[in-house]
Amino acid sequence: MKSLPLVLALYASIAFGLENGQTVLRGYLPEHAATEVQWEQKFRALPDAARIREYARHLSARPHHVGSPYDKENAEWLAEQLRSYGLDAKIETFDTLFPTPKVRKLELLGANKYVAKLEEKALKEDPTTAQKSEQLPTYLAYARDGDVTGPVVYANYGTPEDYKVLEERGISVKGAIVLVRYGANFRSVKPRVAAEHGAIGVLLFSDPQDDGYARGDTYPKGPTRPADGVQRGTVNDSPIQVGDPQTPGYGAVPGAKLVPLDQLTVLTKIPALPISYEDALPFLQAIEGEIAPESWRGALPVPYKTGVSTAPAHLVLASNWDRKPLYDVIVKISGAEFPDQWVIRGNHHDAWVNGTADPVSGTSPELEEGRALGELLKQGWRPKRTIIYAIWDGEEEGLLGSTEWVETHADELRQHAVAYLNTDGNGRGYFHASGSHSLEHAVNEVAKDIVDPETQLSVWKREQLVDISRAKPDQRVELRTRPDLRIGALGTGSDYTAFLDHLGIASLNLGYGGEDEGGQYHSIYDDFYWYTHFEDTNFAYGRILAQTVGSLVLRLADADVIPFKYGNFADTVSGYVGEVKKLAEIQRAELKEHNTEITEGVYTALHDPKKHREAPKSEALPPYFNFAPLEQASDNLNAAAAAFDKAYERYVASGRTGVNEQLLLVDRAQIDEKGLPGRPWYQNLIYAPGLYSGYGVKTLPQVREDIELKQWSDMDAAIVRTSSAIEREVDQLKKATQILDNK
Amino acid sequence: MKSLPLVLALYASIAFGLENGQTVLRGYLPEHAATEVQWEQKFRALPDAARIREYARHLSARPHHVGSPYDKENAEWLAEQLRSYGLDAKIETFDTLFPTPKVRKLELLGANKYVAKLEEKALKEDPTTAQKSEQLPTYLAYARDGDVTGPVVYANYGTPEDYKVLEERGISVKGAIVLVRYGANFRSVKPRVAAEHGAIGVLLFSDPQDDGYARGDTYPKGPTRPADGVQRGTVNDSPIQVGDPQTPGYGAVPGAKLVPLDQLTVLTKIPALPISYEDALPFLQAIEGEIAPESWRGALPVPYKTGVSTAPAHLVLASNWDRKPLYDVIVKISGAEFPDQWVIRGNHHDAWVNGTADPVSGTSPELEEGRALGELLKQGWRPKRTIIYAIWDGEEEGLLGSTEWVETHADELRQHAVAYLNTDGNGRGYFHASGSHSLEHAVNEVAKDIVDPETQLSVWKREQLVDISRAKPDQRVELRTRPDLRIGALGTGSDYTAFLDHLGIASLNLGYGGEDEGGQYHSIYDDFYWYTHFEDTNFAYGRILAQTVGSLVLRLADADVIPFKYGNFADTVSGYVGEVKKLAEIQRAELKEHNTEITEGVYTALHDPKKHREAPKSEALPPYFNFAPLEQASDNLNAAAAAFDKAYERYVASGRTGVNEQLLLVDRAQIDEKGLPGRPWYQNLIYAPGLYSGYGVKTLPQVREDIELKQWSDMDAAIVRTSSAIEREVDQLKKATQILDNK
Repeated sequence: MKSLPLVLALYASIAFGLENGQTVLRGYLPEHAATEVQWEQKFRALPDAARIREYARHLSARPHHVGSPYDKENAEWLAEQLRSYGLDAKIETFDTLFPTPKVRKLELLGANKYVAKLEEKALKEDPTTAQKSEQLPTYLAYARDGDVTGPVVYANYGTPEDYKVLEERGISVKGAIVLVRYGANFRSVKPRVAAEHGAIGVLLFSDPQDDGYARGDTYPKGPTRPADGVQRGTVNDSPIQVGDPQTPGYGAVPGAKLVPLDQLTVLTKIPALPISYEDALPFLQAIEGEIAPESWRGALPVPYKTGVSTAPAHLVLASNWDRKPLYDVIVKISGAEFPDQWVIRGNHHDAWVNGTADPVSGTSPELEEGRALGELLKQGWRPKRTIIYAIWDGEEEGLLGSTEWVETHADELRQHAVAYLNTDGNGRGYFHASGSHSLEHAVNEVAKDIVDPETQLSVWKREQLVDISRAKPDQRVELRTRPDLRIGALGTGSDYTAFLDHLGIASLNLGYGGEDEGGQYHSIYDDFYWYTHFEDTNFAYGRILAQTVGSLVLRLADADVIPFKYGNFADTVSGYVGEVKKLAEIQRAELKEHNTEITEGVYTALHDPKKHREAPKSEALPPYFNFAPLEQASDNLNAAAAAFDKAYERYVASGRTGVNEQLLLVDRAQIDEKGLPGRPWYQNLIYAPGLYSGYGVKTLPQVREDIELKQWSDMDAAIVRTSSAIEREVDQLKKATQILDNK
Repeated sequence: MKSLPLVLALYASIAFGLENGQTVLRGYLPEHAATEVQWEQKFRALPDAARIREYARHLSARPHHVGSPYDKENAEWLAEQLRSYGLDAKIETFDTLFPTPKVRKLELLGANKYVAKLEEKALKEDPTTAQKSEQLPTYLAYARDGDVTGPVVYANYGTPEDYKVLEERGISVKGAIVLVRYGANFRSVKPRVAAEHGAIGVLLFSDPQDDGYARGDTYPKGPTRPADGVQRGTVNDSPIQVGDPQTPGYGAVPGAKLVPLDQLTVLTKIPALPISYEDALPFLQAIEGEIAPESWRGALPVPYKTGVSTAPAHLVLASNWDRKPLYDVIVKISGAEFPDQWVIRGNHHDAWVNGTADPVSGTSPELEEGRALGELLKQGWRPKRTIIYAIWDGEEEGLLGSTEWVETHADELRQHAVAYLNTDGNGRGYFHASGSHSLEHAVNEVAKDIVDPETQLSVWKREQLVDISRAKPDQRVELRTRPDLRIGALGTGSDYTAFLDHLGIASLNLGYGGEDEGGQYHSIYDDFYWYTHFEDTNFAYGRILAQTVGSLVLRLADADVIPFKYGNFADTVSGYVGEVKKLAEIQRAELKEHNTEITEGVYTALHDPKKHREAPKSEALPPYFNFAPLEQASDNLNAAAAAFDKAYERYVASGRTGVNEQLLLVDRAQIDEKGLPGRPWYQNLIYAPGLYSGYGVKTLPQVREDIELKQWSDMDAAIVRTSSAIEREVDQLKKATQILDNK
């Protein structure tokens, strides 16, 4: 690895670009650009894989969930480390609801009685798996207490489409305990949808097809989930609202008004428990009925069936519904020139158990970034803007630490936040970035400056080439010619959510991965032994994660003018508008076809007397919608963005910087404080998690979900409202462009 | 079921069509059409499900493979039954090579020693499974003798593409015993391809994903293959040549010259053995290496890996290489008007073991057709053309009975054969027909006259609607508007092969199925108990199979002018020409892309130091090909077919019939007696089994396989030769049309 700095410098000089012998860096005066390049190169030389490894070992040495002794110890240790680097680190605390299990019982009754183990075995090879007294048992936080008995029905991933398949086959889950596998949607969506269909309980299991032996040898021989591994997690209804359920929309600070437990809307309506595939097998075996559709069949060695179990299951759950303290570690480096413009970077430190992958493989590089920034400060660097490093607590339970902090500081953040840069764990492989498209160009620029340790290509180039290898023929031309690689949009699933979706702060989620199979997500086996045997074993990718995010922090904090580029955003929104129009067309065509097939007798022809099928019903066709406001807004946005981007370079060259304050407000225009229908906490009209996907984003969410959920009567309002958000952003861009143009 | 005849009559009158009060039937004078409809209705009233059931019970009461006592008893019983119906039934015998196993041994050596069971258990519920002394052991006929020891490598389905994946991962099968699963290609292709890559032995197993618990409960609880079930079969290299390997291209009659055993080309080059998934599991478990690609992973509860086993396997095989007698049952009903025009119908009677599904569920309806024809004869019906009912022996070993009969009678068949109609087993569900497109219209017409017992729709209408339900949007318009449903083309796999591919006789393969999961293909569990519990349990579909094929036999045999329709064929050939042109384009584009990706560094970017990948090499691009002769021939064919079809109706109305003799020769023009490259026995230039697919057809085979196998230098010759076959057919059609036009 000795030759790396040289290679790095070589690539850096290529990536930064030189014009007429001058360093060119978007948002920087030429003379500042040259200095910035030097600081960034110094920064990138600092992160040290051995140190990151040692942080990871320390942070994941014991279980450290919210409320545990080691959670607090870690927060204090992190703050102390950061102080030792010369940084101003504080711990900000909140009290939040965090239920922990008191009773967990699951059994299959009847002749083949089976009592679920609900226990992950300690392994002799792996020392931390034996820390039983500190481990949280396998459970789902915020699952309702209950004692229920009912037949078991397998419902695949538990999506609305899956229940539709059951209904077509005449199988009701009313009064049943539903068995669903992890995957396809966010964990907390599964109990909600099960309850919507009348289930009285829900079991979530990790199918070995998705997360077990079908993906490689199981731990400890290999990286994949063993038979007794369980995915813990929150079932706090994240697509509705995140953060402390008892303080929705405001900080859980001392004296905050608490919504009573019996009025909470984000708890599950029915008891819910996660189980291993070993525990799931007897329940699957007990189900009798028709063989399930092909896409429902997992990798357990049994026929997966749609039907009802011959014997009932009995599920008992009870939790301690206590409030527990959170410890957010917050570092502030004041900006020399624009102290009221904040660049914020975060990763959480709490885990379900030891959590070396999730989150420590991201926390450790973040800490190393802190050390490197301390070094730069000692060497004389001062950022133009204020930098905030946050290490959140309580992410696992529902993004508690970040959300409570955002809600508590909402007014300041609305005024001051430039961007939020998130990571949450890290792996070996390819670079990925998702988030606000105003930052798409900036993150592309930085990715060109980072050297992949396995190929010595820039991580940007590697990602471009890997994308080409996976692309369909019609996507390759764009991949080869568009100056910036496209980034995906964000749903929910980590600490960017409150920044992006509640306040409209431009946000990115960053990381590396994709080369290793694994893991042990939310189990006792996600620990130091496992991670250092099977994942980013030498923390080479931990090191470049620190280089990547730290460089982006510097780039944003030091710029004369923040390097937002709105053409990328406008281009992306055009795509979204095209998508929702197409979606409506496809849905109309599919419903027409559905009705035609009923009329011409397709379902009669498919009749099989050995199989039960409900006769499908004709459905009303959607009306035609007026997409004109959205199309107009999108065109206006493209024009406004083009005008801005054109005026930008000249403005930067003039040495003026007054536009910066206006730029903070551009993405803020995405917010409508009334929120999305049925989920007022989510206020971004461009980006939101899907109500039924959770992790998965729905862009232009109100319009898109109206189409998907066939809420035709809301469509006109949704289009107008979403167009207004875009038009507000257009207005804000025009205002900024006037400043650029010195008008 | 009492109301069926009425419903049948109702549908029949609709399907036959009335114009100006007259019955319209293609190829029939109006007055003959009315009579034909009456005879066909009488015919269709005769088949009786209870009788078919009783035949099935009798024919599958004991194992009846070639050379077994019950094989001969069945042939004699069938002939006797047919004689009892008043038909002239004879047994025609041939002696053919049929190896049977003497030694079979398979073991995994090393610490986890495992000796494969190679044995299917008798079940107490199912009486015939205990007939151990008469059952053929689990083996592959025509697998070479040998005693080999080597490491085991899993190679998915054992296609050339699968070996390419292994090579990319740096895994050689040289000196290894390859473990492949059934599926994707014909059985006999697997040992050939394994040997081409240097393997010393090959094991074929039934993966439960494709054929076992992943598809439903296993037998005896449900219909699917149990853990010890084995698929026997032939590995005679069918895509190269079928029939007795020692008498290639000529009948195995007494005195026929026998190719010595050591000069046979269709035996496997390496020992090959079929095993159950229970026996496959320890070998899969012994393989170490990288996790296999997603599409390679079956349903056994282990990680499927690309790599080499830690311990070697030891495989010993030896067969008795004896010649055994075949008993073909042949019935001839002489035609009253055109005795030299033969309509031939067949299904085999031999089985691997008891074979209730394969072939008895097709043999029994054929026998019932014979009884019904006997009845019609008694009532005064006489076919215009000669009808031959054949019940073949030795199909399972390599289409022995049909091929030797065709080769023996080749000269007569070239002159006299109108069409060959095949069935081979039958199931519950949808109608399917494949074969020569000159018969596409005729089979569509008949399918409109058959009533599906489950839906009371015509089987044509049911098939059309089911096809619509499965179609992509752009396929639906054609499905809804084209007068005839398209039929697929035939590769190999049953007794039509010699008729179609060796002599160019218009052929169809017909059957019902698709509603039941199953089976027990080529195992001891394919028996009467299993079939009557899980498949067409009441033989309702056996009954309509007899109605369907018998009606088509009558329709072809009684017509004034044989109802070939060449527009369908020409339209289909146009499609094939479009396909091969497109295939060449796609291949060129893919190779270009492949080379571009190498140049731009995609494979460098994909480099993962934990995984071995061979660096891909640039490949020469294919030249551009002159498809003009093929396009011209296809256009000429369309024009000639349109002229023929236009003149046809007027000609039939004139009462003349002299064109019939010419029509026999049209499909014969597809034959080129030099055969396909490397497989001279296959002489049809329009239809052939794929060299590497086997069951799967390759239409315009020489051209298509030249492209697929990148044999660029043969392309011009292949196009010219294939075009010539089409042009010969054009000439023959023009000759026929001149007769129609009375020139």
